[in-house]
Formats: sequence, structure tokens, C-alpha cells
Amino acid sequence: MRFAKGHGTENDFVILPDPDGEWDLGAAEVAALCDRRAGIGGDGVLRVVRTKALGEPLEGAAASALRCEWFMDYRNADGSIAEMCGNGVRVFARYLRESGLVGDTVFEVGTRAGARRVTMEDDGEVTVDMGPVTLLGPGSAELADGPVRGVRVSVGNPHLACRVARPVAEVDLGRPPVLRADEFPEGANVEVFREVAPGLLEMRVYERGAAETRSCGTGIVAAAAAATPEGEDAEWTVRVPGGVCTVVLQEGEARLRGPAVIVAEGDVRLPVAR
Amino acid sequence: MRFAKGHGTENDFVILPDPDGEWDLGAAEVAALCDRRAGIGGDGVLRVVRTKALGEPLEGAAASALRCEWFMDYRNADGSIAEMCGNGVRVFARYLRESGLVGDTVFEVGTRAGARRVTMEDDGEVTVDMGPVTLLGPGSAELADGPVRGVRVSVGNPHLACRVARPVAEVDLGRPPVLRADEFPEGANVEVFREVAPGLLEMRVYERGAAETRSCGTGIVAAAAAATPEGEDAEWTVRVPGGVCTVVLQEGEARLRGPAVIVAEGDVRLPVAR
Repeated sequence: MRFAKGHGTENDFVILPDPDGEWDLGAAEVAALCDRRAGIGGDGVLRVVRTKALGEPLEGAAASALRCEWFMDYRNADGSIAEMCGNGVRVFARYLRESGLVGDTVFEVGTRAGARRVTMEDDGEVTVDMGPVTLLGPGSAELADGPVRGVRVSVGNPHLACRVARPVAEVDLGRPPVLRADEFPEGANVEVFREVAPGLLEMRVYERGAAETRSCGTGIVAAAAAATPEGEDAEWTVRVPGGVCTVVLQEGEARLRGPAVIVAEGDVRLPVAR
Repeated sequence: MRFAKGHGTENDFVILPDPDGEWDLGAAEVAALCDRRAGIGGDGVLRVVRTKALGEPLEGAAASALRCEWFMDYRNADGSIAEMCGNGVRVFARYLRESGLVGDTVFEVGTRAGARRVTMEDDGEVTVDMGPVTLLGPGSAELADGPVRGVRVSVGNPHLACRVARPVAEVDLGRPPVLRADEFPEGANVEVFREVAPGLLEMRVYERGAAETRSCGTGIVAAAAAATPEGEDAEWTVRVPGGVCTVVLQEGEARLRGPAVIVAEGDVRLPVAR
């Protein structure tokens, strides 16, 4: 079975080319591939499949994916299905281009959140249209070293983005933030950010159900939105532990620009049913 | 650059075939390859090089390696050079066999600790002659949840192997054990083990300068030796978090038997100077 490994700001993925939808990729196979010691290792799997070969209904928000040739079948490392991944879609686009599956520099990728336009920039970075960003009012959380207040943000998934006064490196993200059930009935990713210079944020993120990670694409967008005066457009450079991204906010929608790298390609021997 | 990834009881390695010693593999390149998000990911690198192409002097304990065709140039994930790795040498031997570089089922591998005889067993496991094991008397450490007493053991590298009364899963290895400088001037790996049935040990290990790991080949040997009445021969099955190995102790020498798996092969794009 062919595979590639790539990452965007150190959010890393096992890429499985399966254009004709031949692989039956269950939760156990995904977990085995993402196992960092007994497998390849990754935060998730990006299965590269033609939309018409996906074999699952695309309705509601996902329906616009039907017009895309290629579909990003994204799975979390535990095997669960996820709708979108801002770092993953850049890596996915990079793979499509490098493997010759797409010839254009601007194209759309199908995801379970719908079609996402990507632009391969001249400097090697990738820009992704992330869709609407919605500010939902104030929120709060209890971190390991005390309470924080922030802004509830929806980027398709829920976030609490908290401006802090101290360097983000000093915040203790060693334990899961405690959220209020009335504010976040389904939990949320929690970002802490600080404006270190005009237009420049530093940020760390604790991902829902996981732990602190090196980067989170939707979290970067959420922090940029929370840092922007309501109703205004803005452009932010956001520094996370795994690298640097740029967010453009325009008329309530976000574009995320950042690096996407393919590190290795080869054959993997783990048993995946065909 | 070609690579493979493999593991032995979830102690995992990036394998780099370099038969003619063409790659100049510095600490930075090793760290980049072993980076679990931005690279391939592994506990270390096994460079596969002909002994005559190694380009470094093999003296003292290492001199017996000169008679081996193949040399295991083992590096820790931080780029430092290590002499031997009981799990790594099994994976190394598996790679030599599977890639056709060795045709025999019993052969010697050169290491910086000298020649090590390996046997490819019929059931797919690999046995490695680990050399002499020396009991050095009692020792002690302070773990996160209290003091432990054990036996100081040398398997080429220093160990404190501690018999505990409770299930090893209940021991807190979340912080580095505090050792006595007079007992371990260069530090030590610390094992906790319990005899769960006649001939069967369960064990966990905290590796010196690192953290708890899924497995440690020399640690498995050290625990088996500490569990054996002094001067006697014995055979132990040892269960670690990453799998199961067997240790045979005979006339002061140890053989370690266990699994060794190649998971993937391919090309890696990280820059390594040639």
C-alpha cells in the first residue's frame, strides 16, 4: 500500500492515495497507521479519493464537495471521522500537485465541510479558504494555572480564544481546560494568544479531547478573529509552536496561508483490507 | 534517500541503507529524521553500513566488529552516538535479511559494543546474544511515589532493576527517578518488575536522560538478571508495555529474543549531506 507523510506547521498526516476508493479504512487501520511507534505516525490520515468513488452521501454543508474531483477523507488518529482540518487540507493540496493529480495552481478540494478553494502560492505556501468565522460572545475557562476569559468563536468547530497579557509560553496547558457546559455543550478547542507586535500574534492551543498540539488551523483562524475589532477586516501573522501562518479576515470569511511539506513517500505493510 | 521504518516491541527506528558509507549523518540530520511530526519519527536511527566503509576506528570492545560484514551505526534521536541497542539490533538484522543483504539465518552484526550474534528464528522472532550481564550489588532510587530498592546491573550500560510487590502499572514513572551519585555516577535506566507467574515478569522502564519508554532491550535483560538467584541459569518471559521478549541467562551471558518488524519503506526528502 502506497503512502506519503507530510505536515503543515508540524500538524502531521499519513497520506493514502486511493483514487478509486478501493480501501476499506476502518478505525483500527487508521489507528495502526497513526501509531507513532508501531506504525507510520501522524495526527490523522488523509485518504486521497475521487469524490465520485467516495461511497458516502454528501449532503447539507458537504454537498458542494460534489463538484470537486478530489475528496479529502480526513480521519483523526483515533479513527474518528472529522469534517475539516485547516493544516491537513494544505498538505492534501500539496500532495495532489506533487503527485500530478492536479495541474492547476488554484483548485477546489472536497471535504465533509464542503468545497474548499486552495491556492498554491509562488513561494511554496498554500492558501485555503476556510469559510465563515462567527464570533459568539464572551466565554471563560479554568486552566491549570487559573481562570481565563476569551471569545467564543465558530470556525465550523467551536473555540474559546483567550487574549492573555503574559507570554503564551508561560501559560500552563498541561491539563485540559475546564469549560462551562452552558457555553460549550460539545466542548471546544482553547487558544491563548498575545499580540506581540502590530499584526503579529503568538498562540498556543489545547485541542478538544486531545492535548496541547503544535498547531491547529481552525484555532489559528479563531485567535485571529478574536484579536480583530468586531466587524473589521484584518490580516494577522500567527506564530504557533510548529511554525507560522497568515490569516486574512474579509467580510466574515477567513483565508489561512501557511507551509505544507511532503516529507517521505513509500510502501507501508500494515494490513488494510481492500 | 531511501529509508525504512521498523520497531521491536515498539522501540522504533528509522533505518538508513548506506552500504558504502556515503552519507555524512550529523546530529542535526538524525534529529530531523527522528522528529515525530516534521520528520519520519523514531527513537533512533540505524545506519546500515559495511564495516569496512564505516570510517571510524573500532578498538577495545568494538574491535570484534571488524570481522562483521555489516555494521549497525546506531544514533539516539538527539543525534548522540550509542554503542548498542537490544531492540535495534533485532530490527537491524530483520532489515538485512528482508533486503537480501544477508542470506544466512545466523550471522553477526557489528556494533560499537563489538560483534553481536543474531539468529532469525522460524517463528519470525530474532534472538540476539547480548554478552555478559554483571550484578553489582544493591541500589536504591526515589520514584515519584516513594523509594524503591533494587539491584545494580551492568548490561554494558548501567541499570537499577527493582522488584516491586504491586502491579507495575500502579508505579508512578511520571518523573525521573532520583539516583544516588555514589551508586550511579553516570546515571542509570531504572526498571520496576514483578513476577506475575513462574518464569513470567512484567516490567516498566524509565530510560536515563529520556522518559518512560515502551521497551528497552538491555532493561529487559537487567530485570531478568535481577529476578534470578545469583549464580543460577534461568529463562524469563518479560512483558513490557510495547510487547513481550524472552531472556535466557546462561553462565553470566544473556540472549534476548523478541519480535522485529519492518513497517514501511520508501524515500525521504529531508536534507542529508552526501
